[in-house]
Amino acid sequence: MKYMFENIGHIRSCFKEKFGIPRQPSLVPDAEAFVCIDPAFQRAEAFQALEDFSHIWLLIVFHQCQNRRWRTTVRPPRLGGNQRVGVFASRSGFRPNPIGQSVVELVAIEMVKGALQLRVKGADLLDGTPVLDIKPYLPYADSLPHAKPGYAGDRPQAGTEVIFAAAADLACRELENETRPNLRQLIIDLLALDPRPGYADNTPKRHYGMRLWDLDVKFIVESDRFVVNEIRSVDQS
Amino acid sequence: MKYMFENIGHIRSCFKEKFGIPRQPSLVPDAEAFVCIDPAFQRAEAFQALEDFSHIWLLIVFHQCQNRRWRTTVRPPRLGGNQRVGVFASRSGFRPNPIGQSVVELVAIEMVKGALQLRVKGADLLDGTPVLDIKPYLPYADSLPHAKPGYAGDRPQAGTEVIFAAAADLACRELENETRPNLRQLIIDLLALDPRPGYADNTPKRHYGMRLWDLDVKFIVESDRFVVNEIRSVDQS
Repeated sequence: MKYMFENIGHIRSCFKEKFGIPRQPSLVPDAEAFVCIDPAFQRAEAFQALEDFSHIWLLIVFHQCQNRRWRTTVRPPRLGGNQRVGVFASRSGFRPNPIGQSVVELVAIEMVKGALQLRVKGADLLDGTPVLDIKPYLPYADSLPHAKPGYAGDRPQAGTEVIFAAAADLACRELENETRPNLRQLIIDLLALDPRPGYADNTPKRHYGMRLWDLDVKFIVESDRFVVNEIRSVDQS
Repeated sequence: MKYMFENIGHIRSCFKEKFGIPRQPSLVPDAEAFVCIDPAFQRAEAFQALEDFSHIWLLIVFHQCQNRRWRTTVRPPRLGGNQRVGVFASRSGFRPNPIGQSVVELVAIEMVKGALQLRVKGADLLDGTPVLDIKPYLPYADSLPHAKPGYAGDRPQAGTEVIFAAAADLACRELENETRPNLRQLIIDLLALDPRPGYADNTPKRHYGMRLWDLDVKFIVESDRFVVNEIRSVDQS
């Protein structure tokens, strides 16, 4: 049977493209994002008592995976990107019903210019992601620290060293003073997780780029560490 | 924007009506249920490696809440049923998009008469509930034992004493020998959670009934304990 749903809002985040997004929420706890509630659902009383919860679930639509044929198997980055598991044994967005669930830290419920928004931390969500639902996180029901995690055992390591070349270092300082406090830490946290696809080759000095808000962050791999060598603003599209 | 989804299967469970269903999954860990996969999604490889996870998320449609106007506030049983909180601060099914999420224990993935089904435990789901998605539970991402739980602090107490009157006791033994092993324990577990609505009056000897599979279980409240006084089969509708 078919079911129709309508998003109640959408995500505003620094992640403008899929590359660079942490593969699960909370891996980069300081990445801040906003849930912007659509006008039809801007009823303050609908959020009453939510502020007493430290964490919330967001049910979202993987909108970039819509209208794509689903495949029965996927290759999770956790398995190096070349081993297949069933789509239902993965959290991939390419699934029969492209609905995702993310738990994020709820920082504040705010009214900004007459619009209701939720400020959250630790989101792994693309800018513009449609939000279908918000639910409180209930530790007694949702937290199972001893669940057996199959192939996705340990928390991904955030161990890759990240350094900044002189020009990028300067650009970062300037941006932090102007509009993007904590930019350096955010870049370090994201790159330390190694955003490269699991099946990436290890060609030395290969160039990578990542979009954060309106910034283009360029980096290379050099002796097993990431070197950020350019940070510049790009035209907003 | 509107999004269309199609269920990949449905739940087969002992819970034929809303009354009596535990208010969160895992409260009655032995309650067994099945996720029956629809023919279009019966592709064994889509479930490959899922059996290595002890727990899974089910995203479901609260189908009995569909096509009902959503209200901005609800009265959670946890607050005695007479205090209101915002719908997004609750897990109520009466929400703008009636999608639920439940974590359940995965017992087995089985083929029964050529049909693929997942045998699960701890489900809090009505028989016939449409299932939209199945995802592995990832403790490193999903388990936050220290999250602050707002008004839903502690695990609900399962403290109410349950006794069986002679006739119900006999009926229960017979049914356990025939078709329903563990029936007694299931009834005790469900009633111990006190399924009465929070705003129930405490009229002594008030009669209650609960449907489990094709059984009608009748009980009364007497001196702060539940007395099961009748268990009988009803015609399957």
